[in-house]
Amino acid sequence: MTTLEGRSQVAHGVRRLRDGKWAQDEDVLAAEEPLETRLIWKDGRKTVTKSIAITMRTPGHDFELAAGFLYGEGIITARDDVADISYCMDDDDDQAFNIVTVTLRPGLMFDASRLERNFYTTSSCGVCGKAALDALEVQGCNVLPDGPTVAAATVCGLPAKLRQSQAVFERTGGLHAAGLFDREGKLLSLQEDVGRHNAVDKLIGGRFLEDALPLSESILMLSGRASFELVQKALVARIPVVAAVGAPSSLAVQLAESFNITLCGFVKADGLNVYSAPQRVIS
Amino acid sequence: MTTLEGRSQVAHGVRRLRDGKWAQDEDVLAAEEPLETRLIWKDGRKTVTKSIAITMRTPGHDFELAAGFLYGEGIITARDDVADISYCMDDDDDQAFNIVTVTLRPGLMFDASRLERNFYTTSSCGVCGKAALDALEVQGCNVLPDGPTVAAATVCGLPAKLRQSQAVFERTGGLHAAGLFDREGKLLSLQEDVGRHNAVDKLIGGRFLEDALPLSESILMLSGRASFELVQKALVARIPVVAAVGAPSSLAVQLAESFNITLCGFVKADGLNVYSAPQRVIS
Repeated sequence: MTTLEGRSQVAHGVRRLRDGKWAQDEDVLAAEEPLETRLIWKDGRKTVTKSIAITMRTPGHDFELAAGFLYGEGIITARDDVADISYCMDDDDDQAFNIVTVTLRPGLMFDASRLERNFYTTSSCGVCGKAALDALEVQGCNVLPDGPTVAAATVCGLPAKLRQSQAVFERTGGLHAAGLFDREGKLLSLQEDVGRHNAVDKLIGGRFLEDALPLSESILMLSGRASFELVQKALVARIPVVAAVGAPSSLAVQLAESFNITLCGFVKADGLNVYSAPQRVIS
Repeated sequence: MTTLEGRSQVAHGVRRLRDGKWAQDEDVLAAEEPLETRLIWKDGRKTVTKSIAITMRTPGHDFELAAGFLYGEGIITARDDVADISYCMDDDDDQAFNIVTVTLRPGLMFDASRLERNFYTTSSCGVCGKAALDALEVQGCNVLPDGPTVAAATVCGLPAKLRQSQAVFERTGGLHAAGLFDREGKLLSLQEDVGRHNAVDKLIGGRFLEDALPLSESILMLSGRASFELVQKALVARIPVVAAVGAPSSLAVQLAESFNITLCGFVKADGLNVYSAPQRVIS
């Protein structure tokens, strides 16, 4: 477990633009990795092992995460319901601390059919970050070609344009927004949703229904942070530049870098950070 | 479809505290409702219908959402792959616009086993908001009793305490935080994660493993917005007061109201909004 130390943060090179000046620097990213929770219980004389959830999370306090998740779902209700919680160590090194196994106490009454009914799906990541990267390659998501370029000043102007165009946000303060812009910074479409992945799905889905994909000349602007999931959606639609008002996660940067997507974070009027494929952002 | 008009926002009564003065007002909330996506395809001469995803979303642009989701997952890759998208109208009125059916074109090659493998689960909401509320009652989540009370000034002081205690956030700007406080505003524990539901699971899971549940005297403080999912987790752990720096969603308020949980939003040093069970916040 000591190897989990420091895994909640990941250092990564960044090109910073502030007040018209570029600088090469190092940034600290919040780590994002998949955690698989496996449940082990007795069904008569049979021992059943079932993978019940995979969630993208920041490594650390994984036993608490697994226990809290199962408690929230009503699968465990008292401390004694849990006979053991441990990492599943017989997997390869990469994923050594990304699988937690929870063994229920013998005799715990538990309706396994609830597992099927009660969990709902969000967009996929495959079984682990690495597997997800492989799956995308298989699915036909090749590395994006270099280009097009976009002016840094154009990207810096996008957050204000996004805010001006948000209809619901101004009144509720409760929505994530995603905007699709062209290289000159003209808004092509905008979507808002309580879920940031939904806003991006609506945006790309709208272009899909208009038969206007791929989006190889577009910029995706996000009102919040950039996670693995959002960069993954951009990749499938071949969007070369993803810009976010907030911070990117470690796995978002890793994915963007692997597929030559330009990922900008902390974008505001007077500056931005570029975490991957900086050749597309020109000043 | 015209009945979807205006469903992206919901009006709700609110008690506002600003600079020591309470006022009764009306607030506009971002709507949050479940959307189920069903896929219909031909398998030989058989027509298969399968529910493949349920996600909490803001109503509107639901066909775009369904299409974008399926495109992101690689299930559809060209406009022609979709023969039809429509709402499933034979359900009861409550959920009339919460189920979208996507019919794939005849002959589309499609590996149905990918559906099982490629989607991962997050915490449940049941099949719909209403069903979820019912499920919670069945699961033994009764309405919380009145009390305890907490001073408004104590709640207003929590965001600053949360920020002071965040270890990773200050460096990465990329993490959600959740803190558990007692009635006097003393921090009991804090967790950070790229996923806000994970931070809450870690927090409650930690107390679970210490056999320190229920949390009937505690306040849950969230660094972001309050969604249905987060209030649901608080409910299961019997947390009477949930406070968020950001806005609550419509379904979060509805759930909090149904179970007599005090839900505070837009909490800052000089004020807060109370959306439900205001009797617990005293000045």
